[in-house]
Amino acid sequence: MIAEIKRLLVGQPLETAAQHHQRLTKRVALAVFSSDALSSVAYASEAILFVLVLAGVQALPLVIPISVGIVILLLIVGFSYRQTIHAYPNGGGAYIVAHENLGVLPGLVAAASLLIDYVLTVAVSVSAGVFAITSLASTWGYAGLGDYRVEIALGCIALITIINLRGVKESGAIFSVPTYVFIVSIAAMIILGVLQKATSGWVADPPHLTGAVQPVEPLTLFLLLRAFAAGCTALTGVEAISNGVPAFQKPESHNAATTLLWMIGTLGFMFLGISILAYYHGAVPREDVSVVSQLATSIVGTGPAFFVIQVATALILVLAANTSYADFPRLSSLLSRDRFLPRQFASRGDRLVFSNGIVALGVFAALLVIAFNAREQAMLPLYAIGVFISFTLSQFGMVRHWLRAREEGWRGSVVINGVGAALTAVVLVVIVTTKFTQGAWAVLVLIPLLVFVFQAIHTHYQEVARQLSLDTMRHVDPVRRHTALVLVSGVHRGVIPALEFAKSIAPDNTTALYVDLDEEQTHKVRTKWEQWGSGVPLVTLESPYRSLVRPIMRYINQVDALYDDDVLSVILPEFVPSKWWQHVLHNQTALAIKAALLFRKGVVVISVPYHLER
Amino acid sequence: MIAEIKRLLVGQPLETAAQHHQRLTKRVALAVFSSDALSSVAYASEAILFVLVLAGVQALPLVIPISVGIVILLLIVGFSYRQTIHAYPNGGGAYIVAHENLGVLPGLVAAASLLIDYVLTVAVSVSAGVFAITSLASTWGYAGLGDYRVEIALGCIALITIINLRGVKESGAIFSVPTYVFIVSIAAMIILGVLQKATSGWVADPPHLTGAVQPVEPLTLFLLLRAFAAGCTALTGVEAISNGVPAFQKPESHNAATTLLWMIGTLGFMFLGISILAYYHGAVPREDVSVVSQLATSIVGTGPAFFVIQVATALILVLAANTSYADFPRLSSLLSRDRFLPRQFASRGDRLVFSNGIVALGVFAALLVIAFNAREQAMLPLYAIGVFISFTLSQFGMVRHWLRAREEGWRGSVVINGVGAALTAVVLVVIVTTKFTQGAWAVLVLIPLLVFVFQAIHTHYQEVARQLSLDTMRHVDPVRRHTALVLVSGVHRGVIPALEFAKSIAPDNTTALYVDLDEEQTHKVRTKWEQWGSGVPLVTLESPYRSLVRPIMRYINQVDALYDDDVLSVILPEFVPSKWWQHVLHNQTALAIKAALLFRKGVVVISVPYHLER
Repeated sequence: MIAEIKRLLVGQPLETAAQHHQRLTKRVALAVFSSDALSSVAYASEAILFVLVLAGVQALPLVIPISVGIVILLLIVGFSYRQTIHAYPNGGGAYIVAHENLGVLPGLVAAASLLIDYVLTVAVSVSAGVFAITSLASTWGYAGLGDYRVEIALGCIALITIINLRGVKESGAIFSVPTYVFIVSIAAMIILGVLQKATSGWVADPPHLTGAVQPVEPLTLFLLLRAFAAGCTALTGVEAISNGVPAFQKPESHNAATTLLWMIGTLGFMFLGISILAYYHGAVPREDVSVVSQLATSIVGTGPAFFVIQVATALILVLAANTSYADFPRLSSLLSRDRFLPRQFASRGDRLVFSNGIVALGVFAALLVIAFNAREQAMLPLYAIGVFISFTLSQFGMVRHWLRAREEGWRGSVVINGVGAALTAVVLVVIVTTKFTQGAWAVLVLIPLLVFVFQAIHTHYQEVARQLSLDTMRHVDPVRRHTALVLVSGVHRGVIPALEFAKSIAPDNTTALYVDLDEEQTHKVRTKWEQWGSGVPLVTLESPYRSLVRPIMRYINQVDALYDDDVLSVILPEFVPSKWWQHVLHNQTALAIKAALLFRKGVVVISVPYHLER
Repeated sequence: MIAEIKRLLVGQPLETAAQHHQRLTKRVALAVFSSDALSSVAYASEAILFVLVLAGVQALPLVIPISVGIVILLLIVGFSYRQTIHAYPNGGGAYIVAHENLGVLPGLVAAASLLIDYVLTVAVSVSAGVFAITSLASTWGYAGLGDYRVEIALGCIALITIINLRGVKESGAIFSVPTYVFIVSIAAMIILGVLQKATSGWVADPPHLTGAVQPVEPLTLFLLLRAFAAGCTALTGVEAISNGVPAFQKPESHNAATTLLWMIGTLGFMFLGISILAYYHGAVPREDVSVVSQLATSIVGTGPAFFVIQVATALILVLAANTSYADFPRLSSLLSRDRFLPRQFASRGDRLVFSNGIVALGVFAALLVIAFNAREQAMLPLYAIGVFISFTLSQFGMVRHWLRAREEGWRGSVVINGVGAALTAVVLVVIVTTKFTQGAWAVLVLIPLLVFVFQAIHTHYQEVARQLSLDTMRHVDPVRRHTALVLVSGVHRGVIPALEFAKSIAPDNTTALYVDLDEEQTHKVRTKWEQWGSGVPLVTLESPYRSLVRPIMRYINQVDALYDDDVLSVILPEFVPSKWWQHVLHNQTALAIKAALLFRKGVVVISVPYHLER
């Protein structure tokens, strides 16, 4: 039944041979890989205003220069990543670039940072998407919907998880429409807003404030840096394309680089447009309605156009999470292949996707949503740190790459990546400094912890490989003698085949074991054994504490000590019910004994089944 | 580690030989078996007033005649049960009496009714106990404690469960003190209250009503019957002693009968006293403070004496649940021994108690507390039905018993049990009629459902016994030929002992199987096999859908069809990590294959372990 539900949700299994057809066109790839980056325009301008408004209304115009600064940063980072795409056509995530060029530890730090940020992307984007819908509902008079934020967000995460488990091609089709509706509607809104202001004159509207805003902090450089750091969330997701190069159609690098350019252009235009118009239309952060909603209401009113913008914003935000669903499983499969994560993350499921990574991402994001009550503002201080750590490591890695390879034009490349690295490093310091006490410390604790776990797993796998290696093996011992112990719980049909099996492998060395829990019962078993035991001696074990496992283990230890050159087999007659629910009705003792024997060295466990019919 | 936590909570295991020393003196038995019955005085009078007040203030005096009627019913039921105790010295629960005298189906109906009521007893008593504490807190000005009712109730259930898992003697010691403190403090309160009224004259105080009480229903016969039915919750628990006769010291029947008399006297006195004084002191049901609390405040004020009464009430209520912890596991063990419940309920745990029944009771009661928000008033309509069904069936069973046995004085016994049976049957009809729409229907649906499950389980066990019986077995087939398949995931040290084992049992008939998931890897395995395969042929299986289990099962089917007279063994080389957490790091494929093979008829599964060292 579980298998049927799985088929219904996930679809029929795909053949391994179908793998290479699951490639993305540029247009679909823009939707799949850019929704994270593009969707951040829904909260990045608001995040800047959120900090500036602390210094009062007169600080609000600064949103424009800060946004310009962020767009410049975006261009530089974007050009840096273009180089990575060409240098690493098989996917140049920060992990690979840092690992190859800077060493194992920087690679693991980049990987840990990215994994954390992918989980945050899902939680933040879904929460912000739900906020767009509740803003719409609130504007239209249904403020009560806001009470179900967490439930709606969890539903969205479940939906995205299932879609991704079905496979990447289908998700591309599902994700394309909302992304393009979003781009078109936001662009139309910006153009319309600019035209309106161009007609009416560029005079800023008074902010939509309820009551007078008193400055609570002075306008210091630190506050400006905090506003800048808050706006840097606009850059999250820029790296997605460079991680996903192999998912593009051929020529992969070329198509990926073009898509990256499209994305940066679109993102820069929308982010700057919203920041500028937000200032001129007097939009400021509010509890019930988002900045983009306020802007949309000012420009297009609260009619159908507003509805389209809100729904498209919500959809792209909810779907932005999808970027992480492409990257998290891919990165964890890379880590798994390099033996830093459990092997399960490296195997493709029925639908050719890394199912375990997808499920893990969904679970962690859901936990974050629950912990933060689906409030993306509360999560934002944790966000962007991981991305900038990986940006920095990745750019430095690229500098090292060019210095080593010295291909044609390496000097120019070093400059581009060097500037990128230096700049992102500075921004990283700014982000960590300004957000540290607001939760960023947690990320800075978690990263080394994850790196430690990666290394512990790696050490274990290496140790196993060493112990299993045949290189140091001299000779093979053949089995010279069998000792067989048959565990019996009574004398019935289920015991007979087990007994015959035991006799066939250890004709002169088979013993039956029975644990005495009840005198009367034991006597009956002894009597019946004389008829059916076919000459095999029956040993009854006392069990003063009514345990089955302990007397058996004690006896096994005694028997095992008898010979040095034998193999000791414990034979369990198991009767198998015909229906699954009937398993509950039979004592789980066979399972307990198997578990105990698993950790007992040198015992072979043999299950001889007896199948019941009804 | 789990084992250590268990030891800490539950204690060291006890020897089976210690079983008979765990008997109860009369005084301890009164505490263990009567707390349910006695504690109902904390809510029974309130339940009657709860209905009467619907007809307005002038209906309140009727609490006295109704209570007198219930005490008469109590005496008759009590005398009926005295006879059961003497006739069934091994424990004459309604299940046994109805089963033996009326047949299997009535017995199962009685058992289902009682199991439901035991769970309700725990949930109702614990919730009412928590209400006593929040009443105290509310009277003393800490009304906020009421917000944590559910949490406190769940904590209490967990505590009682653990105490009972430790064993009955220790619980007796723990439960004695609160029971006797409760009896003494309530009795003292009643005597003091009577003395006060005797001095001041028997004039009823005005009810403690906030605002005027308007009658919402006319004072009909139906309302009176509803009030009577509500008060019948005072009788729940009366049957506990007759179920638990074997737990008494010798002579068991005599001691149990004496204890029953003590209990009925104490219960009747306290219940009637509280009902009468509640009327004269003007106590009526309120949201924040219970009737007994109001009474106590009127008589002894809000000082230390009030504190003692409230805490003792809370303790006996919370501990009343303990009656069910003695009876539920015992009844389920009886059902299990008769093969109507899974066998696990019949086996005694480390501490000689029926651990599985205790845990099941705790879990179900906790679920009820969560579902009803720990409000015992909401659960009361479901309560008492089960008890009265079992009362009725049990008394009718006793009538049948005397008619059959015709021992000395059987005529008098028939009269006593006949009157009891008729009366409890009438009361049952009253309870069902008056409480049906308030939730009683759910119990009436659940009882036949449980009976159905009991019978399904019984049919299954009988079928298994028939299939396993050796009586119809003619001859035993010895094993003539072995076919061995070794599943290999690679060529490493873990495979060697499995291969040697296979060769030793099927020297000319061993094949190694490898599932091809990756061409390159498969080639490597083939090459290595030539060196280490010691002549055993290696078959590689294609797996277009990357499944390991399916190709293996398909191959097994082919091989199994080859010979008719062989035993097919599948040999799994398993490497066992040295630490438990390392299990997560290895593919769970061995487990999946074992699960699939379990349902494949006629395959012997052999695990050959290879233990890793670090």
